Amino acid sequence: MRLLTLARDLRRRKGRERQGLFTIEGVRVVEELLRSPLEIAGVLIAPQLREAPRGAALIAAIGARGIPTSEVKELEFRSAAETESPQGVIAVATIPERSLDGWRGRPTLRLVVLDSVQDPGNVGTIVRTAAALGADATVALPGTVDLWNPKVVRSAVGAHFHHQAFHASWDSLLAFLREDGVELWGSDSSGEGIAARPPARLAIALGNEGAGLTDPVRSASSRIIALPISSMVESLNVAVAAGILLYELRA
Amino acid sequence: MRLLTLARDLRRRKGRERQGLFTIEGVRVVEELLRSPLEIAGVLIAPQLREAPRGAALIAAIGARGIPTSEVKELEFRSAAETESPQGVIAVATIPERSLDGWRGRPTLRLVVLDSVQDPGNVGTIVRTAAALGADATVALPGTVDLWNPKVVRSAVGAHFHHQAFHASWDSLLAFLREDGVELWGSDSSGEGIAARPPARLAIALGNEGAGLTDPVRSASSRIIALPISSMVESLNVAVAAGILLYELRA
Repeated sequence: MRLLTLARDLRRRKGRERQGLFTIEGVRVVEELLRSPLEIAGVLIAPQLREAPRGAALIAAIGARGIPTSEVKELEFRSAAETESPQGVIAVATIPERSLDGWRGRPTLRLVVLDSVQDPGNVGTIVRTAAALGADATVALPGTVDLWNPKVVRSAVGAHFHHQAFHASWDSLLAFLREDGVELWGSDSSGEGIAARPPARLAIALGNEGAGLTDPVRSASSRIIALPISSMVESLNVAVAAGILLYELRA
Repeated sequence: MRLLTLARDLRRRKGRERQGLFTIEGVRVVEELLRSPLEIAGVLIAPQLREAPRGAALIAAIGARGIPTSEVKELEFRSAAETESPQGVIAVATIPERSLDGWRGRPTLRLVVLDSVQDPGNVGTIVRTAAALGADATVALPGTVDLWNPKVVRSAVGAHFHHQAFHASWDSLLAFLREDGVELWGSDSSGEGIAARPPARLAIALGNEGAGLTDPVRSASSRIIALPISSMVESLNVAVAAGILLYELRA
């Protein structure tokens, strides 16, 4: 398939799931991709990349790695781009195979569980925060926005090229938590304070922006926790709450 | 001036500064506005508001308060709207007069200082977080996005209708901090950890997403602080960093 056609197809979640590929856009995040262990299938380039800051250096770095490139006209490029002012570079890369298996039997563990978090900016920011604050992995349950959605990858500034973020079913996560004896704490405005000392191996679940945690996740949580907030405000942004909890409950 | 013309004019910062008014859009945030002490000049309504969830109740509440309304056709409404799928309600309200004067001589104080923070979503989220975590006020220095930008107000979910967020010059802030003996701590990736016990009266400065703190703010800070993060990630999102710092350094 031509790289342009492929990149267009990958704008939809279905295309990404069928192909096992995703796209990312912009100089900074493609630079991050080149520094990561991810496999790059090809790079789509528009003329304006040569004028962009660090654009020429990026083209040289891509060429030096022997990655297939395809230069297209600006109008064609725009048909595959997500942003309004594209910088002229879209990379197509393989979605890495990741699972919970690598995390069994660790003496300490911090997992972030995304339970139907839907805003791409929030999910990307949470992945970036989880990576920054040393969480081991981020598990996205069904109902959560696709981790490989271009907006998520952009908000994460490519953090999940390195950080172990992946999708998993609730059944497989629950089995892992039970077999491995990992405690699950759910974050919800109805919860109690986080004065308690966290266990060495802990999964922290964050719920949907409006509806909160799903029933199965709530029921499986040994503790429902909340940050104390002013009565003038309904809630914290979920990515901010995630940041505070990950910092407070760090291993 | 007709309400529609006024609402269109207020989309630009210049219009808002000239008129001393701002607009907000959407059912949820107009509900928040009605619960706030802010003065509402008028409400622009499009037909689809009657079909929106809680739309009819909102129209009734606006009517009961005797607020001037203007019903316009959907196409006209769209010319004043910011969002792609407007819910059919835009309120025009007075930008409240606020200043540092009310905060002199307090035994405890937490000020958030925005030093050229530019993304409206970040600034809105910081205002929402400051309000939620009990900060006394948020001061936006020149170079920071307009606090009354519709995207900021939407991201804050109306938190600054109640929370004291306002613009001030660096000179006036610096004079306040010196005269009142309030310590200023700046947040920057080059800083030291936050193990130190915070003073009772503290201002916390957050810098630009890319460039960090400006020189005057950096020089005036008695301490430059940072959160410890993984070397795999360049930085935390500024709103997430603000949340962790405000929580950690709460009074």
